[in-house]
This record gives sequence, structure tokens and C-alpha cells, in this order.
Amino acid sequence: MRILVVGASGTIGKAVVEELQGENVEIIKASRSNSDVSVDISSPESIRAMFDEVGQVDALVSAAGETHFGLVEEMTPEQNQRTVNSKLLGQINLVLLGLNSIRDKGSITLTTGITMDDPLVTGASAAMASGGIRAFVKSAAIELPRGIRINTVSPNVLEESSEKYGSLFVGYEPVSSKSVSLAYKKSIYGAQTGQCYYVY
Amino acid sequence: MRILVVGASGTIGKAVVEELQGENVEIIKASRSNSDVSVDISSPESIRAMFDEVGQVDALVSAAGETHFGLVEEMTPEQNQRTVNSKLLGQINLVLLGLNSIRDKGSITLTTGITMDDPLVTGASAAMASGGIRAFVKSAAIELPRGIRINTVSPNVLEESSEKYGSLFVGYEPVSSKSVSLAYKKSIYGAQTGQCYYVY
Ligand SMILES: NC(=O)c1ccc[n+]([C@@H]2O[C@H](COP(=O)([O-])OP(=O)(O)OC[C@H]3O[C@@H](n4cnc5c(N)ncnc54)[C@H](OP(=O)(O)O)[C@@H]3O)[C@@H](O)[C@H]2O)c1
Ligand SMILES: NC(=O)c1ccc[n+]([C@@H]2O[C@H](COP(=O)([O-])OP(=O)(O)OC[C@H]3O[C@@H](n4cnc5c(N)ncnc54)[C@H](OP(=O)(O)O)[C@@H]3O)[C@@H](O)[C@H]2O)c1
Repeated sequence: MRILVVGASGTIGKAVVEELQGENVEIIKASRSNSDVSVDISSPESIRAMFDEVGQVDALVSAAGETHFGLVEEMTPEQNQRTVNSKLLGQINLVLLGLNSIRDKGSITLTTGITMDDPLVTGASAAMASGGIRAFVKSAAIELPRGIRINTVSPNVLEESSEKYGSLFVGYEPVSSKSVSLAYKKSIYGAQTGQCYYVY
Repeated sequence: MRILVVGASGTIGKAVVEELQGENVEIIKASRSNSDVSVDISSPESIRAMFDEVGQVDALVSAAGETHFGLVEEMTPEQNQRTVNSKLLGQINLVLLGLNSIRDKGSITLTTGITMDDPLVTGASAAMASGGIRAFVKSAAIELPRGIRINTVSPNVLEESSEKYGSLFVGYEPVSSKSVSLAYKKSIYGAQTGQCYYVY
């Protein structure tokens, strides 16, 4: 089993890599810096180069993607575009450009997040990206070729990230990185497709 | 009551304009061609110019936005970008750039569509745009200033459009333009915010 994890050096990515490790599993870690393979998902060219370098895989996981946090009242199109280029189109372009590198009956697992369902002030741009990915995944699932499956994991704030986000997620019950990484494992080793696994 | 309808010359836009017409209502119709005001929502500059020209309104309705229909397996990032620039960011930029032109207690109503919930082959890009807008609207609603409300209407295929879409929506039960336009009216004259009105 060859698994490509994009965003492998992040909070979620590291937990996923740890959970997936095992015999007969080869994990290829990707991110912009300090990984096996370097990729910037906001650039289609960079995504193409990554798949050329990595070759065929059984599973593609994305736990990468930046989002802009800010009030709608103060948000510029350019600020929102950062979210679009990274979390939204970065992940969707991994699918569009990576599909030929996924083996028959392989899987794709993308990352969304709780703000699309349980909104918080300054979270509209992040919510947009997650809502867009969830709907794309649900629709793509009914037509992907060669038995390839696609799902998304939508985590609540992680215990490890609570501090980083400060008061943003006050009242949200943080989840363990173990629970979150199990959802990615279920997506890879299960048979479901078109799902959003809610770790809320 | 001053209402700006973007996409006023379209199938949905025409029905909405008809439904909203009445005493004490001034409707300003906008689209790329053949409307009171010319705007291309895929261009932030054009959106800015429209609001400069139109001035303050009580309600902003968008029934505009193009989408790419095509298989995920064959879709290029550039094709998906068309949907992003028009239906997704076109509508979101109407909010970001138009907020100052909406009067206190005014409303914004955007358009999504059934494919985000009830997917069809070739609909992933359209689903992405609708899912992104629904989540953005839900989140924006909790923080818009001055009592401004925001909702979205998600129509099933319209009776008037069944023929145009050919076999794409086979088995979907078409809805009347009357039902669809009433949902926009409810959004404008009601008190709810953050809703997605499903006309399925
Ligand atoms: N942590 C949470 O509580 C939480 C909850 C819900 C949802 N999420 C979502 O989950 C995703 C990951 O979150 P996280 O907390 O694990 O983030 P993180 O700790 O900041 O890690 C992000 C990972 O993605 C990589 N990355 C970022 N931008 C990239 C790009 N343009 N191209 C390629 N790789 C890129 C980073 O490495 P480089 O910087 O080296 O590229 C890193 O490996 C985000 O979309 C986030 O919104 C997180
Ligand atoms: N009709 C349906 O059955 C149905 C069902 C569900 C959802 N929807 C969604 O509802 C929206 C409208 O659908 P419709 O069937 O009414 O479409 P339509 O008949 O093609 O009309 C589109 C309207 O938007 C305008 N428009 C298109 N692109 C524009 C742009 N870049 N800037 C400004 N105006 C633009 C068009 O005028 P110009 O060409 O002159 O600009 C026209 O007024 C679409 O997003 C569609 O996906 C439609």
C-alpha cells in the first residue's frame, strides 16, 4: 500500500502518518518544505511535478490548505482568493491532476472542517472552502473511474490546535488527533465513497 | 424598496423580477448585456463600478453565475476555474464589494442549486460552487453589520429549463418559476438569515 500524504508535516498530517504507519505501508510525505516531496498545492504546475515524481499510489490524502480568517465586512476579494487558491482549489486540483496517478480501487481523502456547519465570526472564507469541497466530493464520487473512491474528513478543532486558534473556537469541544486520524484511516481502508466523516 | 437583481435577464432572474414588481418597488436590473446596468460579476472592477452607479439599495439578489459541466476525469483546472470565477466568486464578491451599498436591515439573496445535494454525473464543479456559497452564507449571516440579512435559494431544475439541460436532470422533478421566485421574495421580505431555501 503506497500512500501519498500532502500536508504531512502539519498537526493533522503528522497524526495521520502515525496512524497509517505499519507493515506493507509506504508513506510518501509532501508539503512545501521539509518533506519527502516538495509541493505547493496552490500551483497546478507544482502538483503536476509532484505526481510525476511520486508515480502511482493507492491512496492520496490531503491535510493541507490555508484559509483566511477575517470579518466579511472587512474582507477583500484578494484575501478570500488566498483561501480559494489553497484550501479549495489546491485540494480540488490534487484530484483533477492526480486521478491518473491513483491505482484502480484506490482512494482520495480531502480535509474540510467544522466551520461550514457550526459557523464562527471571521470564519466565512474557511466555511466557503469546506462547503465547496464537501459538495465536490459528494458529486465526484458518483463518477470517478476504475473504482476510485473519494471522501472528506471534517474535524472539529483539534486538542493540539486549541491554543493556536486562541479564543476563536471557544465553546467548541476539541477532538483528539487519534479520533481525527482514524477517520482518514476509515476512508482509506473502508469501502464507502462520497462521504463526509464528521469528527465533531 | 430598491432592489438590485443581478442576472435579471435570465430564466430565474426574469421570474424573480416579475414576482417582485409592485407599488413602491424599484427594481434595477443588471447583467452583462441588455439590462439597466451592465456588470460582469467575474470581474471585481466591474462589480465596483456597478455599485458606484446604482448607489444604495434595500435588497441585492443574484441569479447569475455560470458553471462548467463535465466529468471530473476530463476536467482541467482551467475549466473548473470558470465556475469559480463566475458562480462562486462572482456571487461572493457581490457581497464583499456590495455590503456598503446595502441599507440598514437590507438583505442579500444568492443562488445555489440542487446538484450540491443530489449529485449528477458532470455536476461536480457546479456542486462545488453551490456548496461553497451555502456555507459562506450560513457563516456570513452571524456577523453581517447593521441588521443586514443573507440567504441563498437552491432550486431544483426549473420547468422552463428542462429542455435546455436535456437529459442531465432526468428523473428530477422540475419546479415552477413561481415557486422559485417566491423563495427569493421570502428571503427579501422575511426576517430569517443564514438560510438556504430549498425549492426541491
Ligand atoms: N487543526 C485543526 O484544529 C483543524 C480543524 C479543522 C480543520 N482543519 C483543517 O485541516 C487542514 C490542516 O490543518 P492543520 O492544523 O494540520 O494545519 P498545519 O498544522 O498548519 O499544517 C498544514 C500542512 O499543510 C502544508 N501546507 C500548507 N499549505 C500548503 C500548500 N500550499 N501546499 C502544500 N502543502 C501545504 C504544511 O506544510 P508547509 O507549510 O511546509 O507547506 C503542513 O504540512 C487545514 O485545511 C485546516 O483548515 C484543521
Ligand atoms: N434554471 C435552472 O433550472 C436552475 C436550477 C438550479 C440552479 N440554477 C442556477 O441559477 C443561476 C441562474 O440560472 P438561469 O437558468 O436563470 O441562468 P440563465 O437563464 O443563463 O441566466 C443567467 C443570468 O445571469 C446573467 N449572467 C451570466 N453570467 C454573468 C456574469 N458573469 N455577470 C453578470 N451577469 C451574468 C445573464 O445575463 P448576461 O448573459 O447578459 O450576463 C442572465 O441574466 C445559475 O447559477 C444556475 O446554475 C438554475
